Amino acid sequence: MTLGCPYGTHRVLEPQGVLPQPALRLDNNFSVLYDNEILIEVRVLNIDSASFTQIKHQAKGNSAAIADILKETVSRRGKQHNPVTGSGGMLVGKVKAIGKALEQRSLRVGDDIATLVSLSLTPLRIDEIISVHTETDQVEIRGEAVLFESGIYAQLPADLPQKLALAVLDVAGAPAQTAKIVKPGDTVLVIGGGGKSGLLCLHEACKRAGITGKVIGLSHSAAGLERMKKSGLPVLALQGDARDALWLLRQIERLTKGKLADLTINAVNIPQTELGSILATKNGGTVYFFSMATSFTAAALGAEGIGKDITMLIGNGYTQGHAEIALEILRENLRLRELYASTYA
Amino acid sequence: MTLGCPYGTHRVLEPQGVLPQPALRLDNNFSVLYDNEILIEVRVLNIDSASFTQIKHQAKGNSAAIADILKETVSRRGKQHNPVTGSGGMLVGKVKAIGKALEQRSLRVGDDIATLVSLSLTPLRIDEIISVHTETDQVEIRGEAVLFESGIYAQLPADLPQKLALAVLDVAGAPAQTAKIVKPGDTVLVIGGGGKSGLLCLHEACKRAGITGKVIGLSHSAAGLERMKKSGLPVLALQGDARDALWLLRQIERLTKGKLADLTINAVNIPQTELGSILATKNGGTVYFFSMATSFTAAALGAEGIGKDITMLIGNGYTQGHAEIALEILRENLRLRELYASTYA
Repeated sequence: MTLGCPYGTHRVLEPQGVLPQPALRLDNNFSVLYDNEILIEVRVLNIDSASFTQIKHQAKGNSAAIADILKETVSRRGKQHNPVTGSGGMLVGKVKAIGKALEQRSLRVGDDIATLVSLSLTPLRIDEIISVHTETDQVEIRGEAVLFESGIYAQLPADLPQKLALAVLDVAGAPAQTAKIVKPGDTVLVIGGGGKSGLLCLHEACKRAGITGKVIGLSHSAAGLERMKKSGLPVLALQGDARDALWLLRQIERLTKGKLADLTINAVNIPQTELGSILATKNGGTVYFFSMATSFTAAALGAEGIGKDITMLIGNGYTQGHAEIALEILRENLRLRELYASTYA
Repeated sequence: MTLGCPYGTHRVLEPQGVLPQPALRLDNNFSVLYDNEILIEVRVLNIDSASFTQIKHQAKGNSAAIADILKETVSRRGKQHNPVTGSGGMLVGKVKAIGKALEQRSLRVGDDIATLVSLSLTPLRIDEIISVHTETDQVEIRGEAVLFESGIYAQLPADLPQKLALAVLDVAGAPAQTAKIVKPGDTVLVIGGGGKSGLLCLHEACKRAGITGKVIGLSHSAAGLERMKKSGLPVLALQGDARDALWLLRQIERLTKGKLADLTINAVNIPQTELGSILATKNGGTVYFFSMATSFTAAALGAEGIGKDITMLIGNGYTQGHAEIALEILRENLRLRELYASTYA
């Protein structure tokens, strides 16, 4: 039996001795498979929002140019790992082969799965780009990918359309972590509350904070504000620019009678919102940074610079049960499901 | 009475409407002071370790070239905010003037203080660079700086030499947070344990984990290994490269009989140690990233990529009582005090 490394180092070509995520280039020759790999026939790439925004900007919104950028990255790196943002995304496809060492899993050839590890570490080969959906960050392709032994995935639920499930699974970490952190009675601020992960976070925040809590959502756009209002959730919905830290502070002071937020969840994919997140949070509170646009130093020095004693967490895309928690939201909240289907799937 | 913004936005010249830390340029004309500002006659700049390493590298180790780089940055930005690393440091000086609105504070003109907010947001004017100490990251200057109303500071203790106190205060956040997180019986790994903040973290980790705990220190250099051994602390001292994530995993597996660390404190000022930190930590455990060289995306995607359910914290340079906790270490551990004095002060 030929076993690769559970973390996939056997497919790292450059530089030697690192893990697949920081690697510059992966081996995407799938003619020989290791006995602890799963081969997937890929149908859809769901590009990470920060990454897709950057690619769309570089391609000036042109679909053919977006396709060229994706093909160039994957042929050079052996993975869809955006060299500018450092982020990836996820994929959906059909299981084509399962290594002998993984035969005890409840997974069969032919099953539809979504990978829940980042594309930034997943060996991928693109044979053809079929279509680019600029509104949903999704790209239909013909190609293959490999999942390592440690790679997590979800079998797609039978009761939800595939594209909808994929859109939710892409951001499943944020609402699942929200569910685990929010306590009854908390005041929670979700920055980017009208967005793809923000809406799901708002649902969990409202559910877990409950009737004695207060949930505030901030969106930059009028469309996002509208989505928060249409969600059916008891959210105080705000529109404005989170980069304007002092404006945000004044708004949250006003809405909380000066007490500020116990927990701020940053789920907005634009840079320079760290200080606003910190200012809006009370001493002893927590900021959860889920945005891939977060700057570590801006957050660390920002809190120190204003002498604020808060806990700042790096959003981990994985927490146990995250796929189940996130998908369940669409069953609990039909208004949100409709909104989600019409916007992101 | 002319009051400035407590957070110092009144001294931001470019771009308008942001806080002093992200600003490109601050007003360092101190001929007019606001009534909630403190004017300091600066004696010593203690440059952040990541920043000083970068400057030293750029200057090829030459002291005069280092001085030129510092003068250029401060004349352009009105603050010692390293444009490459984004980090700052702190300063020591004598209080020269206290605004009327702050007269109720227990601070007098003539007091020696160290600022505990980053130089990256502190308006500063350098009149002369007197000497550059490449071994301690400290620079003696003649100049002035302003502390805003929200800016935290520490009066220098009478029983400790000034340079020693300054070296400790510069990294006070890390050991104070360590003290607050470590529980009796914990297995703690300190990456960069032989360094300036790492040694203090090791002291607090040993003290708080106690006889039922286990504390492991990792240093890249032989000198750091030697410092850990000389510290008098019951530390399992390792030498090696934390960027080699799989090597680190094997070492921590060996030392913990496969259980891994409950808490990993990353206090090493080199990039690409995120994955090693994550791999060394058990499911359900915590990684505290104190290094300014931490990449947010590498940490976030790294944990997701290997499906690890851990809490990842962004090191906050401030937590209540951090100066007191950190300075007390030198009174509790005289071996560490000697070591610290001979290495960093």
